[in-house]
Amino acid sequence: MPAVKNTHRTTVAQLDVPPRLLLGPGPSNAHPRVLQALGMRQIGHLDPKFIELMSETQELLRYAWQTSNQLTIPVSGTGSAAMEACFANLIEPGDVVLIGINGYFGLRMVDMAERYGAEVKTITKKWGEVFELNELTKAVSTHKPRLVGLVHAETSSGACMPMEGIGDLCQQNDCLLVLDTVTSLGGLPVFLDEWGVDAAYSGSQKCLSCPPGIAPLTFGPRAVEKLNNRQKKVANWYLDLTMVGKYWGSERTYHHTAPINMNYGLREALRLVAEEGLEQRWQRHHDNAEYFWNGLKEIGLECHVEAAHRLPSLTTVRVPEGVDAKAVQVELLQKYNIEIAGGLGELAGKVWRVGLMGFNSRRENVTLLLNALRKAI
Amino acid sequence: MPAVKNTHRTTVAQLDVPPRLLLGPGPSNAHPRVLQALGMRQIGHLDPKFIELMSETQELLRYAWQTSNQLTIPVSGTGSAAMEACFANLIEPGDVVLIGINGYFGLRMVDMAERYGAEVKTITKKWGEVFELNELTKAVSTHKPRLVGLVHAETSSGACMPMEGIGDLCQQNDCLLVLDTVTSLGGLPVFLDEWGVDAAYSGSQKCLSCPPGIAPLTFGPRAVEKLNNRQKKVANWYLDLTMVGKYWGSERTYHHTAPINMNYGLREALRLVAEEGLEQRWQRHHDNAEYFWNGLKEIGLECHVEAAHRLPSLTTVRVPEGVDAKAVQVELLQKYNIEIAGGLGELAGKVWRVGLMGFNSRRENVTLLLNALRKAI
Repeated sequence: MPAVKNTHRTTVAQLDVPPRLLLGPGPSNAHPRVLQALGMRQIGHLDPKFIELMSETQELLRYAWQTSNQLTIPVSGTGSAAMEACFANLIEPGDVVLIGINGYFGLRMVDMAERYGAEVKTITKKWGEVFELNELTKAVSTHKPRLVGLVHAETSSGACMPMEGIGDLCQQNDCLLVLDTVTSLGGLPVFLDEWGVDAAYSGSQKCLSCPPGIAPLTFGPRAVEKLNNRQKKVANWYLDLTMVGKYWGSERTYHHTAPINMNYGLREALRLVAEEGLEQRWQRHHDNAEYFWNGLKEIGLECHVEAAHRLPSLTTVRVPEGVDAKAVQVELLQKYNIEIAGGLGELAGKVWRVGLMGFNSRRENVTLLLNALRKAI
Repeated sequence: MPAVKNTHRTTVAQLDVPPRLLLGPGPSNAHPRVLQALGMRQIGHLDPKFIELMSETQELLRYAWQTSNQLTIPVSGTGSAAMEACFANLIEPGDVVLIGINGYFGLRMVDMAERYGAEVKTITKKWGEVFELNELTKAVSTHKPRLVGLVHAETSSGACMPMEGIGDLCQQNDCLLVLDTVTSLGGLPVFLDEWGVDAAYSGSQKCLSCPPGIAPLTFGPRAVEKLNNRQKKVANWYLDLTMVGKYWGSERTYHHTAPINMNYGLREALRLVAEEGLEQRWQRHHDNAEYFWNGLKEIGLECHVEAAHRLPSLTTVRVPEGVDAKAVQVELLQKYNIEIAGGLGELAGKVWRVGLMGFNSRRENVTLLLNALRKAI
């Protein structure tokens, strides 16, 4: 046997991290009860008790999303993994896919869809604006897609896409509707079944207040039908829902080891949602966002998105002329332990992104942030 | 706004799970210090403190694997995600790939490689046996693969593949060597650089005693060269190392939100490895395994794998004639809270799989298991 080399045997201290208030686009702070659940002792991924927990989580996810979809599960990765699971499973090479791009995550949809062989068509808007139903209708009739991908809550722009009529449009044109609800699930009204959404995904680390590392996904009957009638195997083993679905379905067949403790955390996060009730939770997010928006006006700052389409969970605040956006972020972090983020893409340097999500959507956080911001600019 | 439906608003109790001793093929019990780290408050994935933690984890992983590979990172998923990352990034459509199948995970390699368009050739052995160097030499000269995939520690069979000479063979034939070290990293000698391994992956939930949900991966210079010279984009967005590598490299460019708390856990698990020292840790695993093997003999049970190629971390125990394997597992779980597993594939119903991994590799666990087994059979 060779000798062990100690070159990389570095000595690191016990973990200690600053007490950050995470008011950026996510992760937001986890709820203390979720953190406690995360640290609970492990059991096996085929243990009868774990299987019980899986069913509870699935049911709680259905409530949060307002869906009765059987195939409603947490994916063993972060939100982007659940996003990719939608495209990997629902696209077959050559399918025409229509993506609405009004922010960064529409662009990511395009990148993913292309990797699975889709012929991608796009419809675009400025970042911060939303699509009108007639624009989508026109695009669908022009491109005749098999799948339409839209972002309900654009984390990069702060815009909330109105969903009325889109499900009907897709059903009439025999195409699937895939919806990104990463920054809306648990924070603002989402009615998947009512809206006729065929597949949706989310993240745990936004309005659900669970750390990242597990990500909700749901497929309705039309999506499941497309999945079951694929000509070719899903081009992604880890996210193949024909196999993952069997572990989460009645068979409970082993596919890959589930992230046990992240599942503990997500269950607790969803339990908190059910305890609070969706209406109350949405109202709380709305009230604290409005309180923030009013406060911004008082200190002379402006929201990037018009009031009608503004996300309560994520606000884009315009950086005033002559202010160094990055310097303000650094000051907030260093002086107040507050994390907010800058803009991406079209909005880089032009906005700050402020999240008031889940456990963090509290009046005291808004008051603190407004006052810290006022001093920093 | 539609009315909220409470159909799926189920009431679930505070999380409570039985105090299982996880002596199956994984997950094994997490070290208490790891569980404590998991529950630490969150910080952002671009926080200066998190970036510091990332570098520490990378360095500690290099020590555990005995490699100096720059591209050494935790993948944001379970072990299978890191496995798929190797094949997704290193295979281009049409590449000839040679897989050694002497257990379940060789079969999984084949499935993954095919999904990325490889022309897969295989070399097979009975589950529990290992390949001789001359058999591999012959297969490489016959098939002229671009990549060879082997399992160092076969979790399904309990066999440990001797690695001497294989790296040289692959280098002389200009093909990459990808190694599965899921059940060996942190539990038995692994010398990636010494062995000339080009890419390797592992799980967190075996000998590292961290819950599943994050998975080590490393690429050496020849693997990185292949990655950088790809003709086509990696056919998997989430695991695309040309992008993920930038987040973990000097640029720290955002790709997807890292699983913050799982990273806390993995760092603590690797810190425990460095504190104990690899030689001591390997010796402990070896000693407790030997104590177990001797104890099995005393109660009339037999190991499936011959002593020379037996994994200290995972033992396959032959089920005696006339004993109902599953009934014994159920009795151990129900009466003693001990989880062990049955066989897979070729070995289904024929063996039990017993893991003595990481924190669980302790004399008291062996003594307890032997006595519970003795009573149950």
